[in-house]
Amino acid sequence: MVDIATRVWNHKWKIDPIVRSLIDTDFYKLLMCQSIFRNKPDTTVTFSLINRSKHVPLAKLIDEGELREQLDHIRSLSLSRGESTWLRGNTFYGKRQMFRPDFMEWFEGLRLPPYYLERKGDQYELTFEGKWPEVMLWEIPALAVLMELRGRAVLHAMGKFELQVLYARAMTRVWEKIEALREIPNLSIADFGTRRRHSYLWQDWCVQAMHEGLGKAFTGTSNCRIAMMRELEAIGTNAHELPMVYAALAEDDAALAKAPYEVLSDWHEEHEGNLRIILPDTFGSKGFLEHAPDWLAGWTGVRIDSGDPATGAQIAIDWWKDRGEDPGTKRVIFSDGLDVDKIRELHAQFAGKVNVSFGWGTLLTNDFRGLVPDDALAPFSLVCKAVSANGRPTVKLSDNPNKAMGPAQEIERYKRVFGVGDQVAEEVLV
Amino acid sequence: MVDIATRVWNHKWKIDPIVRSLIDTDFYKLLMCQSIFRNKPDTTVTFSLINRSKHVPLAKLIDEGELREQLDHIRSLSLSRGESTWLRGNTFYGKRQMFRPDFMEWFEGLRLPPYYLERKGDQYELTFEGKWPEVMLWEIPALAVLMELRGRAVLHAMGKFELQVLYARAMTRVWEKIEALREIPNLSIADFGTRRRHSYLWQDWCVQAMHEGLGKAFTGTSNCRIAMMRELEAIGTNAHELPMVYAALAEDDAALAKAPYEVLSDWHEEHEGNLRIILPDTFGSKGFLEHAPDWLAGWTGVRIDSGDPATGAQIAIDWWKDRGEDPGTKRVIFSDGLDVDKIRELHAQFAGKVNVSFGWGTLLTNDFRGLVPDDALAPFSLVCKAVSANGRPTVKLSDNPNKAMGPAQEIERYKRVFGVGDQVAEEVLV
Repeated sequence: MVDIATRVWNHKWKIDPIVRSLIDTDFYKLLMCQSIFRNKPDTTVTFSLINRSKHVPLAKLIDEGELREQLDHIRSLSLSRGESTWLRGNTFYGKRQMFRPDFMEWFEGLRLPPYYLERKGDQYELTFEGKWPEVMLWEIPALAVLMELRGRAVLHAMGKFELQVLYARAMTRVWEKIEALREIPNLSIADFGTRRRHSYLWQDWCVQAMHEGLGKAFTGTSNCRIAMMRELEAIGTNAHELPMVYAALAEDDAALAKAPYEVLSDWHEEHEGNLRIILPDTFGSKGFLEHAPDWLAGWTGVRIDSGDPATGAQIAIDWWKDRGEDPGTKRVIFSDGLDVDKIRELHAQFAGKVNVSFGWGTLLTNDFRGLVPDDALAPFSLVCKAVSANGRPTVKLSDNPNKAMGPAQEIERYKRVFGVGDQVAEEVLV
Repeated sequence: MVDIATRVWNHKWKIDPIVRSLIDTDFYKLLMCQSIFRNKPDTTVTFSLINRSKHVPLAKLIDEGELREQLDHIRSLSLSRGESTWLRGNTFYGKRQMFRPDFMEWFEGLRLPPYYLERKGDQYELTFEGKWPEVMLWEIPALAVLMELRGRAVLHAMGKFELQVLYARAMTRVWEKIEALREIPNLSIADFGTRRRHSYLWQDWCVQAMHEGLGKAFTGTSNCRIAMMRELEAIGTNAHELPMVYAALAEDDAALAKAPYEVLSDWHEEHEGNLRIILPDTFGSKGFLEHAPDWLAGWTGVRIDSGDPATGAQIAIDWWKDRGEDPGTKRVIFSDGLDVDKIRELHAQFAGKVNVSFGWGTLLTNDFRGLVPDDALAPFSLVCKAVSANGRPTVKLSDNPNKAMGPAQEIERYKRVFGVGDQVAEEVLV
């Protein structure tokens, strides 16, 4: 029996919306949003889409009208009652009422601010300007929309069974990864793949497969909507945008040098335990840790998001030892460009020395490499970053010069202020 | 929106029936049934299940109660109005009214006769006795039920995503075969995989994938129900049971020697063109062709179903030449133990010399080899054969001594009567 009403209803949709919920976003965006809402609510920022993979001509692949429809749809979204109830009532990282009533009231009334879209050659310029706590929520849905529209353009020409086999192959690949991960004792791994996922439904599938295949070794997903629907833990802490914007707001070099610690000082007041994770690489991990105040060594762990991950982890371990901390009580979260081999290797190297976790992103939720001609579904390196704050440019150095961002002159200034020496360049895959 | 009625309806099923239609069977069974109904309606036969793969302990794997439920369900089936309309109104092999009104009237009133089931050690004894045109229709559904119940026993313990990945792997494998077949120019291939399929839904999937992937190179399916539902050609001609039973009915050696030609003489009166396909191997192909009457050389082709297929095809080609026929106008249909490599090889060897076709069975619709532990879903060699007719045992020699059937003494007699010398033994996979 066909449910006629369902079928008619489905045909009433003008578009097939890619992002259908304001919490179809990473959990750390909401944690950071609340922190910004509290500490820097009036900062004006610009976020901008940056396609690091110039060989992917987004404006040729994606129709501008379709892109606008998807972005307009996101602007029409507001928090649903159930989503609000979940955010207010759920336990996150063991804590009730993670989101304060004043923040929730603001969030319940929120619609995302306007976007600015222009085609420039084969790429799109897509920017968002306005109050930081509002604009920053565009990052994840904007990336997800572009990734999925590019995928849809490729899928459009495929036959029904060809499509089914495409997904069969992708499923098999994910499952083989899960089977390989199952061999690693005491693994702790979470899904960090929202932003560059193949699609929402695909991320949802991958998360459920990880849950069935890995059991307790799978600690949860960064995607709030999926965490809610699948009754899983929402995972995430904080990201580069905090030190980038704090640093851009600094009035002079002395203030600049302090800015990254100011971020963590604000965070320290709000969070404890597993939410106290240092992301040291924004302006170079080594200098950051050397100049860090002692209280920061008391934090629970570090997240390694650029540079050679083993080097980064060892720097953190040495730093803890220097500061009289026992690395065996600390946590290292690897989250940069992971796939099974890298996970296995890092786990073998560091398990026993520290608590090791993995935040697995693009190669969990978008490993369609080699599955269609010209590799037209391979993930690529798309980011959406804060490029200015209160009119001043932001900078990110990271532990990989290929990931550095910002005006050249400012990059030099930051390198000087943060004492960044030679860095090893690593290829940026995704 | 959930369709509540559908859900409640689905839960009302006492079992999940494996065979749901009397025409979920091979087309050649219906052609032969009509021939038998016309020529030998009162012959009494016994069909018996034979598991050539003794290492598969069917009675340990399959619950007797479940097996009885499935067989009882088949006995409750009768031809639906739409099925009857299709059989009466459809064009088969370019011919309208392939099934005569008297046969259709009989078929419309048919219910399958009783079965006899007993557990013997780790195997089941399953036999069917009665009028030939009724009993012979048990063969395909009985095999399909046992194959699928054995599969279900293995699938029962698997998780939801594990299951999905199992099918994803199987789909990928089928699709890779299709992609390989696509490279063969002027291929002509049909699905012959009903009897040892993994399941009905899986066969239906494979057929549709072949249709999408191969286009006109895919000539149709032996499964009548799927041919009807998917608007494809129903494919098939005749099988060993005709000469086996005709031979068993022979009163003496002279009559025995004539029996296989009598079968084809009856067939000759009823069918023409692409339905005039000789199946020469029942009592040894070489002797059969040597002693064949000249009118048989005028038939359209041969089907090679045992022995080394290239040898069998060459024997046919030489025979046609001997009889003054042009092999270039003839068709050779390969249907024994095929997979992609064998298909490619045979096509390369014989295309241009004869018209080549393939009837692809088990390794199309049941290639689950290596997909679960202990290879518990690998297809195995199960047959359901006429073992006696009017109380006399049947014999099959075939071109592979490993496929020979019947009492040893009778086998010797048949070998003598049909002049079968040394044969090369080939492993029977499926």
